[in-house]
Amino acid sequence: MDQPSIQIAYALDTFYLLVSGAFVMWMAAGFAMLEAGLVRAKNTTEILTKNAVLFAIACVMYMLCGYNIMYPGEAVNSIWPGISFLIGGDHSVETVLAGGDDAPVYSGMADFFFQVVFVATAMSVVSGAVAERMKLWVFLAFAVVLTGFIYPIEGFWKWGGGFLDQMGFLDFAGSGIVHLTGASAALAGVLLLGARKGKYGKNGEINAIPGSNLPLATLGMFILWMGWFGFNGGSELKVSNIDEANAVAKVFVNTNMAAAGGLIAALVTAKLLFGKADLTMAINGALAGLVAITAEPLTPSPLLATAIGVVGGILVVFSVIGLDKLRIDDPVGAISVHGTVGIWGVLAVPLSNAEAIFTVQLIGVASIFAWVFITSFVVWFVLKKVVGLRVTEEEEYEGVDMAECGMEAYPEFKISK
Amino acid sequence: MDQPSIQIAYALDTFYLLVSGAFVMWMAAGFAMLEAGLVRAKNTTEILTKNAVLFAIACVMYMLCGYNIMYPGEAVNSIWPGISFLIGGDHSVETVLAGGDDAPVYSGMADFFFQVVFVATAMSVVSGAVAERMKLWVFLAFAVVLTGFIYPIEGFWKWGGGFLDQMGFLDFAGSGIVHLTGASAALAGVLLLGARKGKYGKNGEINAIPGSNLPLATLGMFILWMGWFGFNGGSELKVSNIDEANAVAKVFVNTNMAAAGGLIAALVTAKLLFGKADLTMAINGALAGLVAITAEPLTPSPLLATAIGVVGGILVVFSVIGLDKLRIDDPVGAISVHGTVGIWGVLAVPLSNAEAIFTVQLIGVASIFAWVFITSFVVWFVLKKVVGLRVTEEEEYEGVDMAECGMEAYPEFKISK
Amino acid sequence: MDQPSIQIAYALDTFYLLVSGAFVMWMAAGFAMLEAGLVRAKNTTEILTKNAVLFAIACVMYMLCGYNIMYPGEAVNSIWPGISFLIGGDHSVETVLAGGDDAPVYSGMADFFFQVVFVATAMSVVSGAVAERMKLWVFLAFAVVLTGFIYPIEGFWKWGGGFLDQMGFLDFAGSGIVHLTGASAALAGVLLLGARKGKYGKNGEINAIPGSNLPLATLGMFILWMGWFGFNGGSELKVSNIDEANAVAKVFVNTNMAAAGGLIAALVTAKLLFGKADLTMAINGALAGLVAITAEPLTPSPLLATAIGVVGGILVVFSVIGLDKLRIDDPVGAISVHGTVGIWGVLAVPLSNAEAIFTVQLIGVASIFAWVFITSFVVWFVLKKVVGLRVTEEEEYEGVDMAECGMEAYPEFKISK
Repeated sequence: MDQPSIQIAYALDTFYLLVSGAFVMWMAAGFAMLEAGLVRAKNTTEILTKNAVLFAIACVMYMLCGYNIMYPGEAVNSIWPGISFLIGGDHSVETVLAGGDDAPVYSGMADFFFQVVFVATAMSVVSGAVAERMKLWVFLAFAVVLTGFIYPIEGFWKWGGGFLDQMGFLDFAGSGIVHLTGASAALAGVLLLGARKGKYGKNGEINAIPGSNLPLATLGMFILWMGWFGFNGGSELKVSNIDEANAVAKVFVNTNMAAAGGLIAALVTAKLLFGKADLTMAINGALAGLVAITAEPLTPSPLLATAIGVVGGILVVFSVIGLDKLRIDDPVGAISVHGTVGIWGVLAVPLSNAEAIFTVQLIGVASIFAWVFITSFVVWFVLKKVVGLRVTEEEEYEGVDMAECGMEAYPEFKISK
Repeated sequence: MDQPSIQIAYALDTFYLLVSGAFVMWMAAGFAMLEAGLVRAKNTTEILTKNAVLFAIACVMYMLCGYNIMYPGEAVNSIWPGISFLIGGDHSVETVLAGGDDAPVYSGMADFFFQVVFVATAMSVVSGAVAERMKLWVFLAFAVVLTGFIYPIEGFWKWGGGFLDQMGFLDFAGSGIVHLTGASAALAGVLLLGARKGKYGKNGEINAIPGSNLPLATLGMFILWMGWFGFNGGSELKVSNIDEANAVAKVFVNTNMAAAGGLIAALVTAKLLFGKADLTMAINGALAGLVAITAEPLTPSPLLATAIGVVGGILVVFSVIGLDKLRIDDPVGAISVHGTVGIWGVLAVPLSNAEAIFTVQLIGVASIFAWVFITSFVVWFVLKKVVGLRVTEEEEYEGVDMAECGMEAYPEFKISK
Repeated sequence: MDQPSIQIAYALDTFYLLVSGAFVMWMAAGFAMLEAGLVRAKNTTEILTKNAVLFAIACVMYMLCGYNIMYPGEAVNSIWPGISFLIGGDHSVETVLAGGDDAPVYSGMADFFFQVVFVATAMSVVSGAVAERMKLWVFLAFAVVLTGFIYPIEGFWKWGGGFLDQMGFLDFAGSGIVHLTGASAALAGVLLLGARKGKYGKNGEINAIPGSNLPLATLGMFILWMGWFGFNGGSELKVSNIDEANAVAKVFVNTNMAAAGGLIAALVTAKLLFGKADLTMAINGALAGLVAITAEPLTPSPLLATAIGVVGGILVVFSVIGLDKLRIDDPVGAISVHGTVGIWGVLAVPLSNAEAIFTVQLIGVASIFAWVFITSFVVWFVLKKVVGLRVTEEEEYEGVDMAECGMEAYPEFKISK
């Protein structure tokens, strides 16, 4: 390409990454609304606080060390491994114009921005699963470890060029690397934390605890759906020529179709099982479709993408039911949406991508789950022993909002208990 | 243009369509919040479910057949009319670089993505008008027909190159093709469905049934306002040179000004008529301004665009009052916003566009209304005879949330009935 | 550059400004949700109405005269100073292709669109501070003056090439020009308006009046955070080459880091002071971080940007406490977030930008504050004398929703008073 075209292509790709990143950042609002809508009114302020603060923590930790761990390629010196651009600058015009296969094609800062919002997504998955009973500051302490260390290390395995990448593991935008990671950390936490009081009866009965504000939960779904266009669409990392533009467009279409398929499938499945059009299942179905397509939104035809979403939507309903039978209490269904369906997404890659190897995909799932589950378990376990994971029984009964945040979410509204 | 420039222009136009499409997809959340805010608390879960599911249905139906019907140009073979890119690929690099007047300038996938979110918009208009009393699954059945057949056929008349296009009918982003379509289908449904219990008294009195959550309704308005930048701004379909960029920018400005004009006009009109600053009228005024400018957001000066919005904002207030006098019960004012003002938008095109012919615009309005109203009426009528349109009187009294979805939107909040 | 490249660069920069502008427009929704969440339920409809209408008024006034006052450069004739493009057209292809240092590099319409949404932001700051007691139409009258005259005149001082610009005052995206302006106007209004009944007791006690809907307030924060990527990111005004793309990317990163820093700092400060994880302080901390970095989001390293946000987050907590001690009643903390921290942002520019002169920054702060505070005070004072600023005591007790808008925000929900 001539030099003006190199300049403009670099600018277009950078702008595309920034817009995509802003969409992914917006997913933080989606998780906050989704979770605030699915918990009880008395635990709403606290879940909002967790979601807001975890995003901020994720940004700071990923800047301080996470990004360096995940992308160690460009060391500044022996102390600062890969953040030359963070403390100094960005790719120089000369380097870019020099061209060649190694020439950067978009801003390093834009890359950081796009990556940092992914970290927060992984952590957002956790907050829902441990809602309504975990101590706020314990959760935040865990967020520091997950976003600064646990996630970046397994992220390095694939996106930083580590062993999973070398084996040929494929995970386009992170059904495994992001979503299964969040779910694995959540599962470890929930196992140590226990169920909410009253969720499971002594005689094996499972009590539904309905979400307190379904418009918020629905809004959360729409925000996440929209944000996912940045999550998957931006993960192509380049848009500035015909082939790449076509690829990004296909990713948008497939992402959308998988969500639609997942929503309808979960709605119909729930209708057949429970006799009602269960909105919360429809919401989780849409999210399941999105998680399912995330590992490979480029190679399937839109028809296949819809089918991958449909399977995700069916799976999520049975996973929610199954976890309840195992008395694993996940108030928002996060482990099912991001874990069960995240695995499905990774394993579905070979359906359309001839380069994928099923056994390698399995190894990827096992590696991510083992690493995240075990390290998270250790961290949660230490936190449990040192300060305890749970609020007191009385605080749980009264709601964690007053105990942790000192303020109710809806102080003037009359609430039944 | 040289080849690198063709490549980058194609990429920029594709990216612009994708971003625009994501903004239009976001309008689905706007309709959901608007309608959830304007119905009563007991019917909120159901209207959220309708809005979420109709979006998914619209995407699936438009992929399976709607897009083929609307844009039949590029047949794959005698069975699959126009979805070569959906099952196979996209424009090849060679085709694009070959240039010439027929060379594609953006991704076919991006075109599909942008078009599919429009379908959902048309259907979203319907859900509000039939709210609080129509059976959920009947509504979804109608959504299948509208998004798969009724809309694509009249869409073909203009955007697919059909007879309205050949006559010189002008409708830039669809005041008629999208919004009037939704309103016509809604009107047919409402006429067969009847008013909500208690809306109209025996002695001719009209009872106001206030919306239960005005922050949600306001949020819905803002989401729609934002999404409309994609709806109108993306409908220029190209941004990659000076003329096109100027055009898209003017569309953004005019869209914004018409919304502002509509909002102020409806607020002032309502103040003069009712003595209060009626927020729901202001919301509908802004949406009316947006609908009004949609048929021609490019040729008016910003001043004229504001005026077109002002007329829309005044019209919507009188239309809402008029429909109530006719005992046509539209809980959210959708028929007025998208129908009455949609017609105004189409007829206002000749004010600024010298190529528009008033009689042709009238023919367009009549054709769209006749086609959509009659076919919708038939579909609704069949559904009414076969399964019935309305929930039972008791279900309506108790709220459709429990009857249809088995869950309340705000289960812990104490609600007055 | 060759002509195709000039065309594409112009298109890319225009599109970038339009997307940025749409993000800033979205901030109007953020302010509406933030303020609706932080007032009491009985004053919610009115604050929503104010936020919706002020946005419309800002657009109309800025079109009619504000833009001309702020950017007087390109006079049409002796009557219409600078709106040639608004009534006629945009930059011609010839002018752009002619090149040279004076050639426009993006659409004039896009520039107007980007600027107009800034005006609304300044005015949005005011609505929160005067919430729960000011008459609606008085507020709207003030909005006409601020958006049409007060803001454009001080905006001209810097961005239109006026005396502050000539002195070397630096304010990248408007910590002073936009945010301090809003806060100064708000302060003048609050001083003349007085505190809400019951806020300050006779014995000096300060009564907390909690916000009625914290999910809305949190949503507002996330919307503003997202919108700020357009606010700061778009203020670079150009993205289409390597240097500019790098700059925009850095602005995105720094904006995000400052928000994260502000949020964490305010959370920790509030925890140390009050013992609880105060969500409303965390929200204001994030916004404070954003305001703080707005004056210079380009030159700091991300680490310094985080620190600038941290200082903003600490400052906002003490400012909120301090204003309460002074019995200046600001229900949402707007004066602290946008005023106190806006000043901090302007004064922090020399920390990273060697071209900034501390005394000039001080002069800028003093000039903006003096101009806006004094003119606003005069306008508020006249309004007070002519029609009165406050609703009656009874209306305030009952809530301004019924008095001003004739409708409750949550009519079916049982609300404690």
